[in-house]
Amino acid sequence: MQRRTFIRGLGTGSLALGAGAAGVSHAKGKTEHKWRMVTTWPKNFPGLGTGAEKLAELIETLSGGRIRVRVFGANELVPPFEVFDTVARGTAQIGHGAAYYWKGKSEAAQFFSAVPFGLTAQEMNGWLYHGGGLELWTELYDRFGLIPAPAGNTGVQMGGWFNKEIDSLEDLKGLKMRIPGLGGEVLKRAGGTPVNLAGNELFIALQNNTIDATEWVGPYNDLAFGLYKAAKYYYYPGWHEPGTTLEAMINKDAFAELSEDLQAIVLNACKVVNQDMLAEYTVRNPNALKTLLSEHKVELRRFPDDVIERLRALSEEVVAEIGARDAFSKRVYASFRSFLEQARRWGGLTELTYLQVRDGT
Amino acid sequence: MQRRTFIRGLGTGSLALGAGAAGVSHAKGKTEHKWRMVTTWPKNFPGLGTGAEKLAELIETLSGGRIRVRVFGANELVPPFEVFDTVARGTAQIGHGAAYYWKGKSEAAQFFSAVPFGLTAQEMNGWLYHGGGLELWTELYDRFGLIPAPAGNTGVQMGGWFNKEIDSLEDLKGLKMRIPGLGGEVLKRAGGTPVNLAGNELFIALQNNTIDATEWVGPYNDLAFGLYKAAKYYYYPGWHEPGTTLEAMINKDAFAELSEDLQAIVLNACKVVNQDMLAEYTVRNPNALKTLLSEHKVELRRFPDDVIERLRALSEEVVAEIGARDAFSKRVYASFRSFLEQARRWGGLTELTYLQVRDGT
Repeated sequence: MQRRTFIRGLGTGSLALGAGAAGVSHAKGKTEHKWRMVTTWPKNFPGLGTGAEKLAELIETLSGGRIRVRVFGANELVPPFEVFDTVARGTAQIGHGAAYYWKGKSEAAQFFSAVPFGLTAQEMNGWLYHGGGLELWTELYDRFGLIPAPAGNTGVQMGGWFNKEIDSLEDLKGLKMRIPGLGGEVLKRAGGTPVNLAGNELFIALQNNTIDATEWVGPYNDLAFGLYKAAKYYYYPGWHEPGTTLEAMINKDAFAELSEDLQAIVLNACKVVNQDMLAEYTVRNPNALKTLLSEHKVELRRFPDDVIERLRALSEEVVAEIGARDAFSKRVYASFRSFLEQARRWGGLTELTYLQVRDGT
Repeated sequence: MQRRTFIRGLGTGSLALGAGAAGVSHAKGKTEHKWRMVTTWPKNFPGLGTGAEKLAELIETLSGGRIRVRVFGANELVPPFEVFDTVARGTAQIGHGAAYYWKGKSEAAQFFSAVPFGLTAQEMNGWLYHGGGLELWTELYDRFGLIPAPAGNTGVQMGGWFNKEIDSLEDLKGLKMRIPGLGGEVLKRAGGTPVNLAGNELFIALQNNTIDATEWVGPYNDLAFGLYKAAKYYYYPGWHEPGTTLEAMINKDAFAELSEDLQAIVLNACKVVNQDMLAEYTVRNPNALKTLLSEHKVELRRFPDDVIERLRALSEEVVAEIGARDAFSKRVYASFRSFLEQARRWGGLTELTYLQVRDGT
């Protein structure tokens, strides 16, 4: 609560600088809707949790206080993996998480968060907003009485933290690693044992050797969890999560109670946070990586080419199998696959060639 | 007007799909502010002009009709290159363009649109929103009574349309090419003659051989202008514009008249359009390129390595010189340069490595 008061005190100055998500007093607005937001992240966790807070504040600001949103971190109201059901039930009106956490509801949900060797952040936004992706996602969540909206992106993640070096495919055999979603399925096929744990359980599990390795997000978040204290080797690239979309899920009945301008405010606030989080990660990650390397003497490693090549082949298998499981998954996979093909052609002429001529050796 | 009526008729269905920028009736809102938007683009020109329309519609929708925005295409109210002065004067309350068009006001303005061998779209958003870039831009435009906001991004552009092949540096000598901003300065130093023309003048100039070559944006826009009818060779990558930020500029006095929630609505609508335009280009460009190559038999060419290498060296010179011209430019250049260095390090581990392992040969 104190934090809100502080932010309100900033006045319009920060708005002129485009801060937007904060700085507006709510004096004028009469509260019409009191919402609860449940999240899969620790309260105010950098990037993810603060992104959820920004979303709540932005909805309040844009609505002139007509909607108030109280944010609950993981385990404050419900455990992280109960967020989906809590919003579906209407105990909370909105949730913030990532779609691959809900593969138990539908395997196809994973396509809307991250696919190994799949789309980057820019490409995900293309597919979701203008390539038919969000329509499919909407159709899926509609079965549960929810409306999905992209609400954050991590960009290309890191490959994770390992207690031993990965020199060959042999080193993946028997590896017990926290890695959710489709990436976990790929690791399994490479002989490893994927484990799904919520973020706040990672450090202890890694330190206790309950797991041998974990991926989380990238330097900004990994530094915050202190993962460098529990593992020595930090691998790249994040082949399994090349542009993970975070999500807001909105209870359909609660949404239907809003006036049309308030409905637009909620959905567009999600869009603002979707972009803002990626921009923030793009700034904070390189700074955090510097700290990890220079202060904490972390050892940076690139996955060997043959390991990457094998993970790529296994990823194609896994994704194709998930995409063939039922009629709906087939439609999602077909849409995703065709978008990926065109994104690869276009990215080859633009992003990839450009970064090569700018930064290549 | 007919288009607005049509869009209004879509009702809430499209909102549930996240369309957001359209689809809300304004029945409830009482108009409090009538704004004019002037733009540097032909009315409804794909991506750029339609992006400006979306911005206007979104401001209306989010404000429940309290702000109404009438959009004027290039030459409807004023010529494209008078947009800046028109908004500064208050004849229009908001404008949509690109900052490098205003280098006559300040050379430093160019840093906020596109820098040769500079930042990609994702990196630009990082620098502007979380790396200090927008604060500097705000300080610059404040001198003219304007508030800037990023409001669109093209992504990595194409290198342009050429009447002859570019096989060596010699082929740039004497080349008369439409290329604005810093890219034009680089071409000049390579022996060419840069020309600045507004978009709607390009086709005629190229067809009449007033110019030998032109860059514009990418396949989606270049196809719309029919540039393939006037030149045969289509070059990549767009070394001169790797992630061009489009802008909204808002008259400070008009902004000050808005209530705090409406101020937040205007600035956040710009953020939504900033992301949406890039997503749209990411989808439309590869489709348009397919049409150009298969139907119009355009010949796709990559700039030779030694040409790129020379353009890169010249770009560094030009950007450093512009960045040393006065006290303000020095601050902008220092901020930009340090962000570019960190973006290169981070991009090398993430975007570049990832795209190489996903798409590389």
